[in-house]
Amino acid sequence: MSILVVGSVGLDDIKTPFGEVENQLGGSAVHFSVAASILADVKMVGVVGEDFPQEHIRYLERKHIDLEGLEVVKGKTFRWKGYYEYDMNQAHTVKTELNVFQNFKPKVPERYRKSDIIFLANIDPELQLNVLKQMYHPKIVVADTMNFWIESKKNALIEVIKKVDIMLMNDGEARQLMNTPNLIRAAHKLLNLGVKTVVIKKGEHGAVMVNKESIFIVPAFPLEELRDPTGAGDSFAGGMVSFLSKNKNITDAVFRKAVVYGTIIASFTVQDFGTTALDSVSYADIKNRYKKLSQFTSFKNI
Amino acid sequence: MSILVVGSVGLDDIKTPFGEVENQLGGSAVHFSVAASILADVKMVGVVGEDFPQEHIRYLERKHIDLEGLEVVKGKTFRWKGYYEYDMNQAHTVKTELNVFQNFKPKVPERYRKSDIIFLANIDPELQLNVLKQMYHPKIVVADTMNFWIESKKNALIEVIKKVDIMLMNDGEARQLMNTPNLIRAAHKLLNLGVKTVVIKKGEHGAVMVNKESIFIVPAFPLEELRDPTGAGDSFAGGMVSFLSKNKNITDAVFRKAVVYGTIIASFTVQDFGTTALDSVSYADIKNRYKKLSQFTSFKNI
Repeated sequence: MSILVVGSVGLDDIKTPFGEVENQLGGSAVHFSVAASILADVKMVGVVGEDFPQEHIRYLERKHIDLEGLEVVKGKTFRWKGYYEYDMNQAHTVKTELNVFQNFKPKVPERYRKSDIIFLANIDPELQLNVLKQMYHPKIVVADTMNFWIESKKNALIEVIKKVDIMLMNDGEARQLMNTPNLIRAAHKLLNLGVKTVVIKKGEHGAVMVNKESIFIVPAFPLEELRDPTGAGDSFAGGMVSFLSKNKNITDAVFRKAVVYGTIIASFTVQDFGTTALDSVSYADIKNRYKKLSQFTSFKNI
Repeated sequence: MSILVVGSVGLDDIKTPFGEVENQLGGSAVHFSVAASILADVKMVGVVGEDFPQEHIRYLERKHIDLEGLEVVKGKTFRWKGYYEYDMNQAHTVKTELNVFQNFKPKVPERYRKSDIIFLANIDPELQLNVLKQMYHPKIVVADTMNFWIESKKNALIEVIKKVDIMLMNDGEARQLMNTPNLIRAAHKLLNLGVKTVVIKKGEHGAVMVNKESIFIVPAFPLEELRDPTGAGDSFAGGMVSFLSKNKNITDAVFRKAVVYGTIIASFTVQDFGTTALDSVSYADIKNRYKKLSQFTSFKNI
């Protein structure tokens, strides 16, 4: 199945206890696409300014990411500057410059409109709804969000949740939106809004998938060293969605594999800045780590 | 294998968003013993004051908990008063009255000294070392601790860790003691001190077992309602240790089952105040939840 992503493309300045980078290629659409590109070709809708380096364009093209939907407009590219403390759990924003992203009105090229799977990365839920209107019958709609939209555009976000098949959120956001500290209850309240499957990302604690029939819980791949957690959530989504795209019949077993596959992809991503670590990952590396995670989590019946 | 526990026996006043109790039977040795009593008989070493209600004695005796080592001395029983906020992750202490526990010098009755498994619940590490000296060749020594001892008696605690087979800690304590935010690295640093197996309790995120050969990660059993998390960690330990006691040969597979069994026992414990929920749990209930957790966590290879 063909994949379309709509999200941010930006340049990040990131500092962690393990190093510092400037003008690092980033943004939700980038992290998603690069992660997905290991298994599938992705069509991207986004916007950058005239200052966006050609080398980044070439980098994305080498990954077979379709950039027809990436507008280049007058002005500067979206920029984020942030740092992580020693514990790496929390991103601290120093500066966000929306720049050309401020007036981003996603235009889905005609050729993209019949994509089978669409990933609405973390953008204004009103824009997410607008993108959905431009699509012809996508088979699977996946959306992500963030606390900013929960606080500022809750009603539009609820509309998005009602319309998508898979809602991705992190644990804090799910608790906040559904107004309960209990994650399982938050997931069930999200299901009651009409979404078919909820996937809650818990950072170092892994992910939980909940639908009406099933609960699936997987820990993060245990790592002794991570260098930069930026983009881990979108990388997870890219892994998960690309895995789903390779299966006609999305059974519970396939969905579980996709969640684990996303978990493994994200575990590579955080081992270097930006998407760098994914450039040298082979499918054999992924399978190897996937198998290890299975060993780390399996137990026999009593 | 026979089990000995040394720890606190107390009376708790607990308030949670789901209710309030006074003079609830509590303490680490109690939570451990009651949890373990479903599978095994436990010998207890502890201390209470003259005010300790006879009904609690009878309750523990009904669970076949051997109380020869429970001293009754002049003065008042250890008391803890605390509450939990809506999110239930953090216990807030209102008042701790050590009372007779202040001068607790555990005396292991002769008949107890050849116990096969000993659980050194969270008490002063110097007392834990002293108890170990009183034992004849226990086969498995398990210890727990808390941040208070990490801050005030770090050296004695390190001595304990060097001498035990299984060290139980919660995630925050492991990070604090080993001075790293990375849990897997903290576990490996603990192993380097000489302990054979580390079991890290992560509350609502489950538990991780690490030894030189293996990592095992299990989530908490997903619950939509919990009423009182007090004693969950000791209940987990009681479940795990009692399961181990039923196996002569502690293989990796047996250890994993024991960790899951402890996880399931703790999931029942938190559904009511004190040890109340465990009074009505059958082995069939436990097996049923155990099997469900297996379904919640299993995935196939890609």
